[in-house]
Amino acid sequence: MRISAIGEFALIERIRSILPRPHDAILDIGDDCAALRPTAGKDLLLTTDLLVDGVDFTPQTITPFRLGRKAMGVNLSDIAAMGGLPRAALVTLAIPPDEEIEFVDELYRGLREEGARFAVEVIGGDLSASSTLMIGVTLVGEVEAGKAVTRSGAKPGERIWVTGRLGAAAAGLVALKAGCRLRDNRIETPFEASDSLQEAIRQAIERHLCPIPRIREGRTLAEAGAASAMIDLSDGLASDLAHLCRESGVSATIREDRIPIDQTASAIARRFGQEPLTLALQGGEDFELLFTSSWEPADIAAIFPDAAAATAVGTVEEAGYGCRLEQRDGRTVTLTGGYDHFRHQQERMRNQDPVLHRHW
Amino acid sequence: MRISAIGEFALIERIRSILPRPHDAILDIGDDCAALRPTAGKDLLLTTDLLVDGVDFTPQTITPFRLGRKAMGVNLSDIAAMGGLPRAALVTLAIPPDEEIEFVDELYRGLREEGARFAVEVIGGDLSASSTLMIGVTLVGEVEAGKAVTRSGAKPGERIWVTGRLGAAAAGLVALKAGCRLRDNRIETPFEASDSLQEAIRQAIERHLCPIPRIREGRTLAEAGAASAMIDLSDGLASDLAHLCRESGVSATIREDRIPIDQTASAIARRFGQEPLTLALQGGEDFELLFTSSWEPADIAAIFPDAAAATAVGTVEEAGYGCRLEQRDGRTVTLTGGYDHFRHQQERMRNQDPVLHRHW
Repeated sequence: MRISAIGEFALIERIRSILPRPHDAILDIGDDCAALRPTAGKDLLLTTDLLVDGVDFTPQTITPFRLGRKAMGVNLSDIAAMGGLPRAALVTLAIPPDEEIEFVDELYRGLREEGARFAVEVIGGDLSASSTLMIGVTLVGEVEAGKAVTRSGAKPGERIWVTGRLGAAAAGLVALKAGCRLRDNRIETPFEASDSLQEAIRQAIERHLCPIPRIREGRTLAEAGAASAMIDLSDGLASDLAHLCRESGVSATIREDRIPIDQTASAIARRFGQEPLTLALQGGEDFELLFTSSWEPADIAAIFPDAAAATAVGTVEEAGYGCRLEQRDGRTVTLTGGYDHFRHQQERMRNQDPVLHRHW
Repeated sequence: MRISAIGEFALIERIRSILPRPHDAILDIGDDCAALRPTAGKDLLLTTDLLVDGVDFTPQTITPFRLGRKAMGVNLSDIAAMGGLPRAALVTLAIPPDEEIEFVDELYRGLREEGARFAVEVIGGDLSASSTLMIGVTLVGEVEAGKAVTRSGAKPGERIWVTGRLGAAAAGLVALKAGCRLRDNRIETPFEASDSLQEAIRQAIERHLCPIPRIREGRTLAEAGAASAMIDLSDGLASDLAHLCRESGVSATIREDRIPIDQTASAIARRFGQEPLTLALQGGEDFELLFTSSWEPADIAAIFPDAAAATAVGTVEEAGYGCRLEQRDGRTVTLTGGYDHFRHQQERMRNQDPVLHRHW
């Protein structure tokens, strides 16, 4: 059945029935505002991120359930990047009236599922008709007063670290653009692929469609006071490192041989004649954390017992150089690139690219 | 110049230069999250409202400056309806890459202007390319702990009140649909109109394009503890009274002869052969406050010295009747109507109505 057949108020009731009654809110859906009681001694963190059909996703490659998870996940990642703990979400949905109600059901189930992993509930929002589908999430989080980890605290001499491994989300996008699809957790490829390549493609697409917000890692760093600056990798390592350097007023050099490339990214890059390093540096949406620290590697290892949890990739330097990559051959090149919503989108409109994602 | 020519990051810098540096935020635009320190003893209020091109406005009838003011104003009104004080805003903008940069400049000037009237600053947000223009504002406000005025507190026997006068915003929309335009505060009509009708049309269109959030009135009611339930009139008196009754589990009767109809609404209704009462009951976007109170009229008058500030329009009754209108002739009719985003929007798409607003 279509949304227009039941109307706005029945749809709101339907959404209320899908969402759990928030245990943490004073007021939730059904009033002019939602209300929360702040925790004493904490600062509020506020972030909002919008996913737009044709720019940030295409319904052809993502189910509404995963889209809901992603819309929540990308916002959770912003809270993680401040060392915060997320608390509650507002969800804005702009949707064509001829869309199926089941689409909305699945979208909110995805939002609920991803939120529940981090004890976050949807406590309010807004619905509107629109010719373009759009999902906006606003997240409220908290962090110990004065302890938010910003982008602007990096100091020359510190090490630059990343959590996890990079390039898988970009590799997943390469696979989607090549016609691979994830259906009910099974992978479909329009070409012959070995079991191991199929598994790499499945993992990479899964990673592209459902980011893993590094809330736990961000909290560990904030509680230990280990990170001087932090940002999440949404636009790509090259671009996000540049943001951090600009806000901190520093330069940075990272070493090619230190960049932890995800093995699915390597396998997929090989298959499609791409450079794994490019996927790791320029591909966005890994949603790992990039942070700087004056701590010795042994001390970072003490708070992250899993050696793969964080890798030192370079050093912060005095302002003036921008961001540089020290290659395996010892040469140093300037890092450029990263995603620009408006420029890339205009190119896309010119090219009429049928699979459109924000990072290409 | 077009947005795509300068790109996302230059556009963000441009927006930062238009917005005042927030005095009230710990962190603002330029980090993964904005940060605020909550006021001790207060609860947080959170609300979000989205304006969509072709649904909530048309660029043909509203300047980007007024659109910015309206996007902020409709959210301020939600904080007013809880008796709260607004603190800070996040702004989400989805915009076609071929839009002019000056459009964005003017939009943010409007957001800044309307926010400044209530000491609210834009402390964060998100930008995305989109084929459909959309502006979303999320507002954070505060209210004394446990003192938010909800929709659910109305009790049988209480009086029902509205602030200000009703119907002007709907009358403004009637005038816009008839081809009247407001340009640089001068009115243009495609027909002969007396000076007084022109002035009525100017005021009504102004009211439609720039709502007046009743923050002061809402605070007065909350501080005095006078209102048992409250809602802002965004969908229309008939519809919003029904929301309040449903959440409170009560019925309501309002009296036709008590409804304070704005005189511009009466003048415009006469000119276009419409019923002023219909504009006041069914027309939305007046953004006055509807509240219930056990207080005597003399006590309400004591907190609102201006007699036009609030008018008693009816009484709360036991559940079971819904919302009724007692007409001048003594007969009682059931109140129906109000705006439904999805149903109205589908009708619009069928009719290809060139002037599209959410309340018709």
